[in-house]
Amino acid sequence: MSVTAPRGFVAAGAACGIKASGALDLALVATEDAVAVPAAGVFTSNRAAAAPVLVSRAHLAATGGRAAAVVLSSGNANAATGDPGRADAERMCRLVGDDLGSASEEVLVCSTGLIGIPLPMGPVAQGIPGLVAARAGGREAAVAAASAIMTTDTVRKEAVVVGDGFTVGAMAKGAAMLAPDMATMLAVLTTDAVCAGAALGTALARAVTGSFNTLTVDGCTSTNDTVLVLAGGGSGTSPSTEALGEALGEACRQLAEAMAADAEGGTKVFRVVVTGAGSDEEAHAAARRVAGSMLVKCSVNGEDPYWGRVMSELGSAGVGFEADRVAISYGDVCVCRHGVSAAHDAAAVAAHMAGAHVEIRGDLGLGGGTGAVLGTDLGHGYIDENRTTS
Amino acid sequence: MSVTAPRGFVAAGAACGIKASGALDLALVATEDAVAVPAAGVFTSNRAAAAPVLVSRAHLAATGGRAAAVVLSSGNANAATGDPGRADAERMCRLVGDDLGSASEEVLVCSTGLIGIPLPMGPVAQGIPGLVAARAGGREAAVAAASAIMTTDTVRKEAVVVGDGFTVGAMAKGAAMLAPDMATMLAVLTTDAVCAGAALGTALARAVTGSFNTLTVDGCTSTNDTVLVLAGGGSGTSPSTEALGEALGEACRQLAEAMAADAEGGTKVFRVVVTGAGSDEEAHAAARRVAGSMLVKCSVNGEDPYWGRVMSELGSAGVGFEADRVAISYGDVCVCRHGVSAAHDAAAVAAHMAGAHVEIRGDLGLGGGTGAVLGTDLGHGYIDENRTTS
Repeated sequence: MSVTAPRGFVAAGAACGIKASGALDLALVATEDAVAVPAAGVFTSNRAAAAPVLVSRAHLAATGGRAAAVVLSSGNANAATGDPGRADAERMCRLVGDDLGSASEEVLVCSTGLIGIPLPMGPVAQGIPGLVAARAGGREAAVAAASAIMTTDTVRKEAVVVGDGFTVGAMAKGAAMLAPDMATMLAVLTTDAVCAGAALGTALARAVTGSFNTLTVDGCTSTNDTVLVLAGGGSGTSPSTEALGEALGEACRQLAEAMAADAEGGTKVFRVVVTGAGSDEEAHAAARRVAGSMLVKCSVNGEDPYWGRVMSELGSAGVGFEADRVAISYGDVCVCRHGVSAAHDAAAVAAHMAGAHVEIRGDLGLGGGTGAVLGTDLGHGYIDENRTTS
Repeated sequence: MSVTAPRGFVAAGAACGIKASGALDLALVATEDAVAVPAAGVFTSNRAAAAPVLVSRAHLAATGGRAAAVVLSSGNANAATGDPGRADAERMCRLVGDDLGSASEEVLVCSTGLIGIPLPMGPVAQGIPGLVAARAGGREAAVAAASAIMTTDTVRKEAVVVGDGFTVGAMAKGAAMLAPDMATMLAVLTTDAVCAGAALGTALARAVTGSFNTLTVDGCTSTNDTVLVLAGGGSGTSPSTEALGEALGEACRQLAEAMAADAEGGTKVFRVVVTGAGSDEEAHAAARRVAGSMLVKCSVNGEDPYWGRVMSELGSAGVGFEADRVAISYGDVCVCRHGVSAAHDAAAVAAHMAGAHVEIRGDLGLGGGTGAVLGTDLGHGYIDENRTTS
């Protein structure tokens, strides 16, 4: 059910012709009665933010954090498209708002796909009335919406989390350019919890920090990354900000794991856990450095427990570091202690490296800071996927 | 002639058995009379600095910047080897010093190869007397030394620069893990210029900034990077610090270009030139971000002029950026102007992308800052080289 699981939400997916393949490329998530409800967003930190990011940010500011619908398109990012691109994004909101009977500021917009090519607004404008008319509750509508935002994704990404008296539903797309600080990914969350706008923003920010921002695939930061949440209140339950943040976070974590598993060309997901750092921030920075290292990624692809590369990355992460305090493990097997090679069961390490999920642990031996980042390996498939856009 | 080109220097290479293949793995560069002369070094910023880095730093500090010789080994990095590793590096210097009749503090040491494995000191100690005895001037000795520091390098890297009344000779190794701030590479420069130690350090730092530190292959920063220079004074000429820095810089630039061309698995070298930035520092940071991007590297490999990725990286480089002021060119052909797609000669761009050297230019349109960074493409070869160490 994903985005239609919480009470009071409808969704739709349609094919308007942005994608030459004829696949679904327009999605809608809206409140059932098209009334604006508390909404919040987290957007890319890329200064080359795409037109839909600029427009959604402006709309949330204009409404003081309320929205009735989100329209999403895939196949073209509407990024690096200048003022005409921004006008196109505004027009998408206006067309959806007109059909819903909502103000255009109450509609948010996301796009994903190639950068630098004007959005084909003819097909988009022609497709929107049918998209809005098709909106419905239930599983089929949610599947259509989640399918319509896929680009290089090979699987749909959906999640439902049931809280204490309320429900969170979510859909996302993302398979490449994933990195901390939100890299090419879109996610829309819905909830029937009762929640004021300010608390919703706080809960969402917390959820994103503990999920999408711990994911790194290739270190690139997208122009279009957006996570949006709409809180309809249909359950009548008012959870605490903590409880709501936890439920949103759980949904985001499930989506982030799905993205890592679907990363372009990736064959393995690995988690880098750093402990013993001077602070949680330093632990996270060190974990991110290791997870983002092309050489570490290659080693994971080759199932090679070459811990020297992990040591080298920890040492160049810009955090507190004393080589002779460092311990490094693959899975549960410690291969480096006090900064030097430790006798270990090589067969156990080999068995761990051969799995689809690899864990690399680095203990800096300095303090109580901990952090974890998900990464994906680097193999031929990543290159084959990304060397040309055609 | 490389390191033996300036008057007063000798060199040697030997095979002591670190490399199972029996290839040359020990190198020496020394003053002809084994007398210490002004010397300076630039070392890795990695906090997991290897034992030879710690020892060479300490020796230069102890002598106030003087050295009679450099001993180098390849095949084992003597990194993440703890106190025993440091004792091994000290012993290498002592053995060489004993044979030369120099103090062990007047000998500097470099190692390159795998991390985390104790240096096989038996073969090294056995090999040093023959290495020292074999030292000679002339081309053959220089070739032997430059060959003995190679690891995954496919070609020797040597340079000679003739200044006004003095000569600079240089050798280097490096083909992977190259990044700004000195990543796995060793270089030894010699000169017969007359130069005080302090000026020599200044000239070397300037030379490294404009050469090795503009090179990025995979963004990894090595535990062992070292650039050393010895100034013997044999020419009797005292160039200005600027003139000496220029000659050292030219030698370093030639070596950096050779490293980029020899990067593991690379098929193309590309230069990212950023202009119009708020400062030279911002331009360099932006160029480094673009050159280090896995997606940009894949595009270069695929000869795909997908400038959207360049725009996205410029926007996430953390520097002053306004999308509608940005222009992007491949070679001389502008493909993006005012932040949006510009009509251009696609055939000319395709021809440029098909070459072995690609130039990507980004103008931020904000100020006078300029910077350039060399990068290499990302293809199957890089992965094949790095996925396992065996």
